[in-house]
Amino acid sequence: MRKVAILGIGQIKVGEHWEKSLREIGGDAAFAAMQDAGIEKVDSLFVGNMLSPLVSGQNQLGAFFADWIGLWKQEAVKIEAACGSGAAAFRSALTAVASGDSESALVVGVEKMTDKAGRDVTAALATAADADYEVEQGISFVGINALVMRRYMYEFGWKHEDFAPFSINSHANAMHNPYARLREKISTEKFEKSSMVATPINLLDASPIGDGAAAIVIVPAEKVARQPRIVVAASAAATDTIAVHSRKDPMFLQAAYLSSKRAYEMAGLTPADIDVFELHDAFSIMAALSLEASGFAEKGQGVRLALDNEISIGGRIPVCTRGGLKARGHPVGATGVYQLVEVVQQLRGECGKTQVDGAQIGMAQNIGGSGATILTHILRNDFNPA
Amino acid sequence: MRKVAILGIGQIKVGEHWEKSLREIGGDAAFAAMQDAGIEKVDSLFVGNMLSPLVSGQNQLGAFFADWIGLWKQEAVKIEAACGSGAAAFRSALTAVASGDSESALVVGVEKMTDKAGRDVTAALATAADADYEVEQGISFVGINALVMRRYMYEFGWKHEDFAPFSINSHANAMHNPYARLREKISTEKFEKSSMVATPINLLDASPIGDGAAAIVIVPAEKVARQPRIVVAASAAATDTIAVHSRKDPMFLQAAYLSSKRAYEMAGLTPADIDVFELHDAFSIMAALSLEASGFAEKGQGVRLALDNEISIGGRIPVCTRGGLKARGHPVGATGVYQLVEVVQQLRGECGKTQVDGAQIGMAQNIGGSGATILTHILRNDFNPA
Repeated sequence: MRKVAILGIGQIKVGEHWEKSLREIGGDAAFAAMQDAGIEKVDSLFVGNMLSPLVSGQNQLGAFFADWIGLWKQEAVKIEAACGSGAAAFRSALTAVASGDSESALVVGVEKMTDKAGRDVTAALATAADADYEVEQGISFVGINALVMRRYMYEFGWKHEDFAPFSINSHANAMHNPYARLREKISTEKFEKSSMVATPINLLDASPIGDGAAAIVIVPAEKVARQPRIVVAASAAATDTIAVHSRKDPMFLQAAYLSSKRAYEMAGLTPADIDVFELHDAFSIMAALSLEASGFAEKGQGVRLALDNEISIGGRIPVCTRGGLKARGHPVGATGVYQLVEVVQQLRGECGKTQVDGAQIGMAQNIGGSGATILTHILRNDFNPA
Repeated sequence: MRKVAILGIGQIKVGEHWEKSLREIGGDAAFAAMQDAGIEKVDSLFVGNMLSPLVSGQNQLGAFFADWIGLWKQEAVKIEAACGSGAAAFRSALTAVASGDSESALVVGVEKMTDKAGRDVTAALATAADADYEVEQGISFVGINALVMRRYMYEFGWKHEDFAPFSINSHANAMHNPYARLREKISTEKFEKSSMVATPINLLDASPIGDGAAAIVIVPAEKVARQPRIVVAASAAATDTIAVHSRKDPMFLQAAYLSSKRAYEMAGLTPADIDVFELHDAFSIMAALSLEASGFAEKGQGVRLALDNEISIGGRIPVCTRGGLKARGHPVGATGVYQLVEVVQQLRGECGKTQVDGAQIGMAQNIGGSGATILTHILRNDFNPA
């Protein structure tokens, strides 16, 4: 397998883009990535998307975007793994280029969510859970996460306000990201007073939906002269039961553990080597679980890492440096690509006030469903290894 | 890239499986393929599906089926390319194994279609077309194909009854396939008297929907002792504009031309070398266009091949030897995997009365939308090359 480098990145601001269609927002991110890469054509296109059949009445997004972008004959396909669709599309593209099947590939993560009413989107998001054994009981996707959070608080003795630092960190970082949806500071007081969504998850535990698109162009590393040259050091994916109640231990993200373990082995690294970690804080509880399963904290102690201020810029393991899902926004099928774009920005040193000093190695972890599909990627600066 | 072999195949009868859920039908095909392969575990799972979010309220079919099948930690993902989803999933699995990323992979093509009312399924199928520029005008998916057929008849001077041999051939072959949905002979008279769906496409020009699932296990060829050893000689995919009206020549399947051309080059073969061709006869017009674009007939002359009886068993290029989409049935996201399973059956010599004598090389072509995504695969018997 060849080493693969990231040649270009593109993204649009997450928000309510009522004036733009699905094809336009995906196209905008794709064109930005191709312009950044300095190329006009790629061999293949991989689209990550979860909701377009339900929200936009559109399937076959591979050919759909190849058409709009002007890649009229190229191979194109859509990958779906619920909220993990973006990183799954990236991983497919990576395999295509690493194997020699493609000489270049474009990954587009795209989601149009605001064209339907909120309750329709809530129902659409529930398709990430088990339709027969979870949703059939009337539970929503946030409801499932609320059960997990409540149990975690009970089992490890945390109070709700202990989760505040996760959201405060994400919001503080989003202030400096022009592509973020929620660019406003929050406090522990505001966090505690926020409206309840599904007890104990309130509005500030939960990431906002939004229309969004992010894109990446990858090519064999040997073809990249650009400095810094960002390469993919590791890519791994794993699954867990789709229903949370089927898990031996619902407090442990097995697929995060497995995929991060494989990624560390592949890259020859340990958690201590990671300079920046874009994790999947769809809900504050998921941030804690992700840190624990990926080796940054003991079981039940992910919250401690946040309380000790170790997750902010300058901390032991800076997370959600561009705002994370919580404040950059969570356009579900696009999120995994946003995370990778943000890691690239860090490794290029383009993050201004939220730049992690001397960041050389970055990790992104994208989660589909309540931990059913988890992908972990490690990117690194190839010319100045840490 | 390593040579890849097909170790096991499985399928269920296409039909109205109201007593079984989405997970059960997919699982049944998967278990059959793994039993045929003689293995209990694979490294990765690739699911081809188009409609589960719309029909079953279920997304994330990768993790969903990994869970049900008992592949609890394995990588799993869903690929969607409308009716081309099955072959697209196979192609992703192929890249994973050929590249060395996986040592074995399971492909499951699955579609549950009969749990919704007919008009809901018609609307769901229309998501394969362009929502903004085709469906928005009120046209259905069959309506788009009807416009193509009408124009083809006008441009090349064919009558409606000239298309009858395609459907007659598929129905005749399905008689001998226990997994086919429509196991009944039809005549030209019956064909002409059939109810109109969208002029000029009548019920016997169109393939029936249905619940269905088919599965394939692939491994590196070097690990297969089983004889005959069926290997993947070529795999290629291409796209065209998603809306038919955007094409320079709506009578020509550019993506079939491109993907079959690449496949022939990859395998070092010409159309004359193909012993059996499982083509995508979603509508009789698509059978004609597929034969033309893949090099078996001149432009506008695909119908002639059928009229001359060259597409039946014993003809120059036997097509739809197990009934094709027309009579085996068209459970959309599963179809591409059924086609590949059927080619394997031919190369193994397991087709009884519809066995193509001495078949050594078989081709399958799977189409997403009205020709927007087209994948061509060539399989061959590795031990006794023709």
